[in-house]
Amino acid sequence: MTSLAQLASHFDLAYEGDGEVDISRVATLSGAQPGEISFLSNRRYLGDLAKTTASAVILAPEFSGKYSGNKLISNQPYVTFAKVAEFFAPHRAKPDGIHPKAHIDATAELADDVSIGAFSVVGADVRIDAGVQIGNRVSIGAGCYIGAGCVIKSGVVIEHDCQLGERVTLHPGVVIGADGFGLARDHDRWLKIPQTGRVIIGADCSVGANTTIDRGAIEDTVLAEDVHLDNQIQIGHNVKIGAHTVIAGCAAVAGSATIGANCLIGGGAGVVGHISVCDGVTIQAMALVTKSIRQPGIYGSVAPLQENSQWRKTAVRIKQLDDIARRLNKIERTTDD
Amino acid sequence: MTSLAQLASHFDLAYEGDGEVDISRVATLSGAQPGEISFLSNRRYLGDLAKTTASAVILAPEFSGKYSGNKLISNQPYVTFAKVAEFFAPHRAKPDGIHPKAHIDATAELADDVSIGAFSVVGADVRIDAGVQIGNRVSIGAGCYIGAGCVIKSGVVIEHDCQLGERVTLHPGVVIGADGFGLARDHDRWLKIPQTGRVIIGADCSVGANTTIDRGAIEDTVLAEDVHLDNQIQIGHNVKIGAHTVIAGCAAVAGSATIGANCLIGGGAGVVGHISVCDGVTIQAMALVTKSIRQPGIYGSVAPLQENSQWRKTAVRIKQLDDIARRLNKIERTTDD
Amino acid sequence: MTSLAQLASHFDLAYEGDGEVDISRVATLSGAQPGEISFLSNRRYLGDLAKTTASAVILAPEFSGKYSGNKLISNQPYVTFAKVAEFFAPHRAKPDGIHPKAHIDATAELADDVSIGAFSVVGADVRIDAGVQIGNRVSIGAGCYIGAGCVIKSGVVIEHDCQLGERVTLHPGVVIGADGFGLARDHDRWLKIPQTGRVIIGADCSVGANTTIDRGAIEDTVLAEDVHLDNQIQIGHNVKIGAHTVIAGCAAVAGSATIGANCLIGGGAGVVGHISVCDGVTIQAMALVTKSIRQPGIYGSVAPLQENSQWRKTAVRIKQLDDIARRLNKIERTTDD
Repeated sequence: MTSLAQLASHFDLAYEGDGEVDISRVATLSGAQPGEISFLSNRRYLGDLAKTTASAVILAPEFSGKYSGNKLISNQPYVTFAKVAEFFAPHRAKPDGIHPKAHIDATAELADDVSIGAFSVVGADVRIDAGVQIGNRVSIGAGCYIGAGCVIKSGVVIEHDCQLGERVTLHPGVVIGADGFGLARDHDRWLKIPQTGRVIIGADCSVGANTTIDRGAIEDTVLAEDVHLDNQIQIGHNVKIGAHTVIAGCAAVAGSATIGANCLIGGGAGVVGHISVCDGVTIQAMALVTKSIRQPGIYGSVAPLQENSQWRKTAVRIKQLDDIARRLNKIERTTDD
Repeated sequence: MTSLAQLASHFDLAYEGDGEVDISRVATLSGAQPGEISFLSNRRYLGDLAKTTASAVILAPEFSGKYSGNKLISNQPYVTFAKVAEFFAPHRAKPDGIHPKAHIDATAELADDVSIGAFSVVGADVRIDAGVQIGNRVSIGAGCYIGAGCVIKSGVVIEHDCQLGERVTLHPGVVIGADGFGLARDHDRWLKIPQTGRVIIGADCSVGANTTIDRGAIEDTVLAEDVHLDNQIQIGHNVKIGAHTVIAGCAAVAGSATIGANCLIGGGAGVVGHISVCDGVTIQAMALVTKSIRQPGIYGSVAPLQENSQWRKTAVRIKQLDDIARRLNKIERTTDD
Repeated sequence: MTSLAQLASHFDLAYEGDGEVDISRVATLSGAQPGEISFLSNRRYLGDLAKTTASAVILAPEFSGKYSGNKLISNQPYVTFAKVAEFFAPHRAKPDGIHPKAHIDATAELADDVSIGAFSVVGADVRIDAGVQIGNRVSIGAGCYIGAGCVIKSGVVIEHDCQLGERVTLHPGVVIGADGFGLARDHDRWLKIPQTGRVIIGADCSVGANTTIDRGAIEDTVLAEDVHLDNQIQIGHNVKIGAHTVIAGCAAVAGSATIGANCLIGGGAGVVGHISVCDGVTIQAMALVTKSIRQPGIYGSVAPLQENSQWRKTAVRIKQLDDIARRLNKIERTTDD
């Protein structure tokens, strides 16, 4: 139990209302019970604020007047919420040491406090730094380097010679360093291009469940620091992604594309191969980037949803568009006469 | 060997033709050999009906006149086919008990007839009910509950504290309960939001290969009963999906979205976060839902495929659309004069 | 170390320049150091050719005049590059035999030189031919056949009774033979259709990381020879894919669709169920094929990306398209008077 006043003091924030109220977990505005603290970071939830039964709410100064209950005032209410949630998060005991049913190659070098789960395999010449936590059934190929503080969840595969910086998190089912998709047409058959590059992941990156990042063909595939990939994403060979870029689920970046820093790529969006996207670009969900983008900004391409009977008419007209435009040109010439 | 008359009797259906003909397996209309029974449930295959060499065909009364061979008459021919296929399906011996190479935590509680394959890991405080079958190389995190009759195939990962209702099937490579994608921008870096909710899956759900369902951020991610997800789907944190909803492959539902009951979400479709889709909605393949849907119906947004030389013209015109509309407005004003 | 003249002789090609220069690895034009050989196969990189510090460049006769440095002349520079890259590729020692921590059913038949990694499971009645390499934590279900020279990477699941031809490569996290998505609506609930077919993969195919290929419902799901699938792809039940077809990442082919030979399916593209695509078809990235295609050619449907303020205007106009077309028709009738 922590009082609101104690929380405010711990995070160096102001509070208003009853500082003695006890807080023991976080909750949403609509789901909060007494003893829980919630937050407002999105105008969309102002209606929930009026009705919340939370014992306190984290909110920005400009919304303070909208709420008469106990509150914690923060210029970054969502960041403060993240920190308070971490403060109250239940922490299971950290796994302990190397499970006897893991298989560690004799040439691997592990720091003293590394933990590795059952049925995990660590290959030859792997180096694992301090504090790394590896789940069950993880494969780490020969020659990999895993930086201090990395967390590798169950079922991950890291192929040979890849490198993770400090504090990288890989969620379950991630595959790092599979061969890129390189084929040359040799008369009537396909010939595989050897994929001899690596995957290099910077510090503080996270990679979502079942996401795949292919190794480079010749050069490396590289994520800079603080890059965050959601689930089910595909990153092709030789791709470079700049620092602080965030990519939502099911997006794909094709081979040899370069994404700048501080970009936001929406869910299901695609970036074709061999192009560049500059820093500070937002791509909307399910949009396709077919040419390099050289100006920061927000870009989209997905048609609005319509009820089917309307959409079928729209779809017919889309196929007529060139004809429509030509007919309009003709009328303009006529009416200009 | 089962005769047509015996099958009809077993499923309480009428037949026409030679009741003595022997049936031993199911087949498609076009591929059927003597001894096999096929079905017609889609007008598209009427041409195949005329030519089939099946020993009998399951069909609806309205198509009975179209076929002079042996037939089993059903008002739900596809459902009857499913039951007949199950009747004839070869069943490999059910796996037997706990494999000596599995790793079961001492605090886990397993019903007597649970089977668990080699190199699977069951964590602390897990409870597994009667008749559950778990494949090879499955990870079940601490505190999970697995309801009676669940089937969990090889390579699945279930993270801590998740719950499966009765008779849930998880296909290979599924990841349940990975952390949702929650990040707060703290000045120039990203701060992770702890993901402290769970995944709760109702009875009779199925989840396809390599599909991922993230745990909630604060609240739980919840699938009601009889929800079916195909392969390669991404379900974000805090999502709620209503009973009897079916989602096709590669679709994605972003965080905190709510999908109603009896919906059909097409392959590759996307639903953005924080919106609601009401009961009884069909979303067509690869459409993107960006706003809440409050009326049942069919919705789409994907442009029709065109041959490239045509499509390139269309694409140019799409970019001119606003200009085209403005020019049309102007002409209307002129010709109205 | 190999001299340029030796390389030329080994691959039966002409060279120009200093035949004595030593080559020890491949590199990109822009990244090459002395001792490395690069290639030009795409006009896009002519600028890099002028500035390269590679010791030699593989290029086509028509570009020979553009470069005064050492060169290897090839009519298929990318194919030659693939072969030279393979020639120089570092090869880690091939894994050796059956790992003592693998679990092989007593009834499985393995050729003498098969290798199998730690914590892999081979089921009953499996047959594995000569030279097959199986990674760590692979599951091969009962009754499967694995042809000579296959390479199966870590974390793959192959369900029962599937067949791989010779020299098939499965990358990490691939799932072969999971149940297809077959459901029949039985009054208010869904009934599962048993999936009793298999997956049959032809010789020289490759399947990318975390790609899923479902088993057939009644018939088999079949890939012909030399088919290449990138990562994160979904292939539904009963699908047939013709020889030499290549499918890029995140694409999906729904159940019972047929794709011809020598097709190229772009990244994120979709093919709906129960249709056919003839030989020699290219589908552009993220396009959706909703009807059978009977003419070879290139097909697309994805709107061009626009800056958001423009795109929002376009999106409004797309919804007005049918109205715009009707108004244009009306004006044409008026001005024709």
